Amino acid sequence: MALTLDQLNAAAPDEALRLLDGLYEHSPWVVQRALAQRPFATLAALQWALVQSLAAATRDEQLGLIRAHPELAGKAMVANALTAESTGEQSRAGLTHCTPDEFAQLQRLNADYNARFGFPFILAVRGPRGSGLTRQQIIAAFERRLGNPVDFEREEALRNIHRIAEIRLGDKFGVEPELGHRVWDWHEALAQHSDPGFKEQGQLTVTYLTDAHQACQRELVARMRESGFDEVGIDAVGNVVGVYHSAQEAGFAAGPPQGETAPSGGSEPREAGSVGAMRLLTGSHFDTVRNGGKYDGRLGIFVPIACVERLHRAGRRLPFGIEVVGFAEEEGQRYKATFLGSGALTGHFNPAWLDQTDADGIRMQDAMRAAGLPGTLDAIAALRRDPARYLGFVEVHIEQGPVLNEMGLPLGVVTSINASVRHVGEVIGMASHAGTTPMDRRRDAACAVAELALYLEQRAAQDGDSVATMGLLQVPGGSINVVPGRCAFSLDLRAPTDGQRDALERDVLAQLSAICERRGLGHRLERTMIAAAAPSAPDWQARWERAVAALGLPVHRMPSGAGHDAMKLHEVMPQAMLFVRGENSGISHNPLESTTSHDIELCVLAFEHLLNGL
Amino acid sequence: MALTLDQLNAAAPDEALRLLDGLYEHSPWVVQRALAQRPFATLAALQWALVQSLAAATRDEQLGLIRAHPELAGKAMVANALTAESTGEQSRAGLTHCTPDEFAQLQRLNADYNARFGFPFILAVRGPRGSGLTRQQIIAAFERRLGNPVDFEREEALRNIHRIAEIRLGDKFGVEPELGHRVWDWHEALAQHSDPGFKEQGQLTVTYLTDAHQACQRELVARMRESGFDEVGIDAVGNVVGVYHSAQEAGFAAGPPQGETAPSGGSEPREAGSVGAMRLLTGSHFDTVRNGGKYDGRLGIFVPIACVERLHRAGRRLPFGIEVVGFAEEEGQRYKATFLGSGALTGHFNPAWLDQTDADGIRMQDAMRAAGLPGTLDAIAALRRDPARYLGFVEVHIEQGPVLNEMGLPLGVVTSINASVRHVGEVIGMASHAGTTPMDRRRDAACAVAELALYLEQRAAQDGDSVATMGLLQVPGGSINVVPGRCAFSLDLRAPTDGQRDALERDVLAQLSAICERRGLGHRLERTMIAAAAPSAPDWQARWERAVAALGLPVHRMPSGAGHDAMKLHEVMPQAMLFVRGENSGISHNPLESTTSHDIELCVLAFEHLLNGL
Repeated sequence: MALTLDQLNAAAPDEALRLLDGLYEHSPWVVQRALAQRPFATLAALQWALVQSLAAATRDEQLGLIRAHPELAGKAMVANALTAESTGEQSRAGLTHCTPDEFAQLQRLNADYNARFGFPFILAVRGPRGSGLTRQQIIAAFERRLGNPVDFEREEALRNIHRIAEIRLGDKFGVEPELGHRVWDWHEALAQHSDPGFKEQGQLTVTYLTDAHQACQRELVARMRESGFDEVGIDAVGNVVGVYHSAQEAGFAAGPPQGETAPSGGSEPREAGSVGAMRLLTGSHFDTVRNGGKYDGRLGIFVPIACVERLHRAGRRLPFGIEVVGFAEEEGQRYKATFLGSGALTGHFNPAWLDQTDADGIRMQDAMRAAGLPGTLDAIAALRRDPARYLGFVEVHIEQGPVLNEMGLPLGVVTSINASVRHVGEVIGMASHAGTTPMDRRRDAACAVAELALYLEQRAAQDGDSVATMGLLQVPGGSINVVPGRCAFSLDLRAPTDGQRDALERDVLAQLSAICERRGLGHRLERTMIAAAAPSAPDWQARWERAVAALGLPVHRMPSGAGHDAMKLHEVMPQAMLFVRGENSGISHNPLESTTSHDIELCVLAFEHLLNGL
Repeated sequence: MALTLDQLNAAAPDEALRLLDGLYEHSPWVVQRALAQRPFATLAALQWALVQSLAAATRDEQLGLIRAHPELAGKAMVANALTAESTGEQSRAGLTHCTPDEFAQLQRLNADYNARFGFPFILAVRGPRGSGLTRQQIIAAFERRLGNPVDFEREEALRNIHRIAEIRLGDKFGVEPELGHRVWDWHEALAQHSDPGFKEQGQLTVTYLTDAHQACQRELVARMRESGFDEVGIDAVGNVVGVYHSAQEAGFAAGPPQGETAPSGGSEPREAGSVGAMRLLTGSHFDTVRNGGKYDGRLGIFVPIACVERLHRAGRRLPFGIEVVGFAEEEGQRYKATFLGSGALTGHFNPAWLDQTDADGIRMQDAMRAAGLPGTLDAIAALRRDPARYLGFVEVHIEQGPVLNEMGLPLGVVTSINASVRHVGEVIGMASHAGTTPMDRRRDAACAVAELALYLEQRAAQDGDSVATMGLLQVPGGSINVVPGRCAFSLDLRAPTDGQRDALERDVLAQLSAICERRGLGHRLERTMIAAAAPSAPDWQARWERAVAALGLPVHRMPSGAGHDAMKLHEVMPQAMLFVRGENSGISHNPLESTTSHDIELCVLAFEHLLNGL
């Protein structure tokens, strides 16, 4: 018999503890302390209490819990001395069927890991989807994590322990994140399309209008059709647009379309008579960076598709239409034209882009025509949306940062997409002999840049929510025995408001000048990018907050450090974003980018809550 | 009638000032203040007083002097409004015969330079040798110096003004540095030999046993013969060795040799009967780095040759023999075998070197045989010198650093060749998104290395005479929007004693560990080189000091930050070095490396003084 929350909430303390027995390996205290927070409205609320319980524990308690875990494919497994839960997990991950080589490799890794960290390697290995790892993936993760700093790895172990508990909890309550699994599978399927040269290496790269990109378009069109969208089409810049009619519109409509709508008109209402129903605009991009992740952008397309599918299956219509756009281009990989997809909807398509050539010399307009698009400015201009007909724009996106992962929270509400500015620069000193130039006679360009790097760090931290990064740093043509005469660097400064960003930039540039002045050095600096902040519309942000709270989760408000399609829509309509936790410290633009079915499910439910509240 | 020092020393103040009229453009105060230090024992002493006078002046006085100078090929030249001195100088540099294009270019450069620095460009352009510059060279120097920091360029202008005064002083006193010119010409002639691929571009590169290297050997042999050496030969590692017999040895000798001595025996006394006379060993290397300077090493061969030539012409013999060695290899450019030439004399030739191959796969022993050398270990072992038969080793070398140039001193006495140690390393953090990773959650490898760079600076400065350099610094594969996960760097640490170097290294490595510990980062470090200090033998250092003092110059003692052949000889006999000022801030391993006939002449005189005092 599966456990219910009512049972757990009503049980006497000892009984409640027994009901959750085995959740944390040999460590009932984690559950015991969390139970003090009963009653729990949702499983997510219980999990959050468990996260808090472990986070508040002493370092020794945490280490004790970690050390209570068996090694992966270790002595305990061989000796059949695992807990029932661990046995099931390790066996389902195939670890009981290692080849002798794999087994030997795992023993070596176990020994190295233990020697380095003083505790066993812990990885949530179970589950068919959202958590399932092959033996090869387990070994790769093991090797990768061996290089992590000790304190980081301790936290990573605790995160994996929570993930293991999440799956064990599902077993106890007899619930599976079926919605999450379904959306997870959609991501897996879409990730099968990848550009030549990457696909062969198992890497995901989908750049604008390549064959793989067009295959993604076709798959999204099919997915939208299957999910019950009323209108589905590919527009003049290659966006995939699906509309699920409002109750009012559906009353006029003759039924779901039989064929694909003409590309450039896919997002337009079919009848002048249907005007009157407002729409909610949502979506994100399906193109990727080179060797990118499966969720970046795509989550924001699939989550609303899942919501529409649920509405459709339930035969429900809302008082507004839902327009989901899979933006064809956001990353600017093939052409130097970022936010091309969302920019077309706001009327910010730059006509010069059509003549831009890619690395192979193919002009954008020729690439468009080859992909069956008109490739004309007129057709693109027609994509511009009339903001008066839209309620607003919402976007779901994987966080692409470590915050939710570190906090143990599945969802976060975005307060603002940060303003940003970038520079590339160079400090110019005088190269001289490292042996013969006394310290007080040097004009060391690298030391000046070092000072600036440390200032960046300290100045951004002062704001609390600003970030400043020197991602490029190099002494060009440097030699071990030459005092650096030049040092190239970059600046990437971001803050939640334009004013805060400007103050940060002003201080950093003033500091650069002061450092160079004091050291008698020259410098040059080129601003390569500036983007305004896109603060969330307060009422829309509040809708996301209510949706998150309804799941029994605390509301965590955070800025978005990365740019998103919502930045473009922000220029014409109110917008707000919801972030989903990324695994692996939120790594993004990387094949390790990942999320779980559980988190995806919570996101779908939050989106549904927002729809129902409008 | 040429002026004499006696006249100047005896003249009334006003008269003395008049005698030196025009030395400093429209600025008699420079001379006036220097005259307070009369009487001057030498012209060099007078020049030193002038340097001190200008250095002690106020910033405004210095700028006033600089601004009193005409522009090169400027309006004043066109309007015939230059001082007599300037007219002669600019005309002899060919500036009065510029092409229209050159003239236009110089006008542009004058305008840019004035706009940037607020004073005219000053360059000592005159003289046939040691100071003569072509119009093309003048334009190149102009363009290069436009990029200098303002305070540096002000000092560089003052240095050029002193150089102009030096030449004007020579005119007044009717003296030319004939000896210096002669040795200057020898450098020019030797620099005509350069390896293929470099020669065509006007670059100087002479690596071990190439055709250009062998041409240098032949030219040095010829130079030594002409200068009156008794024995001249090329030894088994390609060193050019010349011996000028002592009075005692010369009594036994049958006269100068008619033919070249057999290569491997060139440095050996020809007769057992001549044993008994001690020798002074001196010399330096004639190989170069790629695109190197003309004086690095070679000055230490030519200066003693010039002394021997003077002895020979005067028919003088000293109570000891003089053995001058042009070392075949010091820079380690073609093979990884630095100090090969001097190492052979101390018995430190590494047998494994013979099988080492160069970039073209040519084994060293094959290169030796192709150059007519035996290429056997026996022949090389025979080169080992018996320290008991040598008084010691002295070496003259261009400073390769900025100290003497900045002080305005032609010569410096070396106290020690610094101990050194080198590391290459990497700090390992975690790459993450520059926009989405809050400042307090970063593991930025570059910021850690930045901290270390600044610590290096500060820790080495604490010692006063230690130097520490991070010459290599790079975020490998960095991106403008990624927090650096790795940062590669190098350490080059040097100090006058091994103990001081060790303490420096200890502190730097401890700091690296502490930084990484505090920031939760990993690091790896590899020590790639360590070399012991070679302190000067006190009695030999004292001889150089007396020689410098005898020229009327202050004695400036300084460590050598660079390695030299004297380091090798240090292992078996007492040694001491004399440094000669390098122009252009002492730049070395660069075609801009330069010295003047005047400085070379002073060096020859100092060497002669040392010889005469033994």
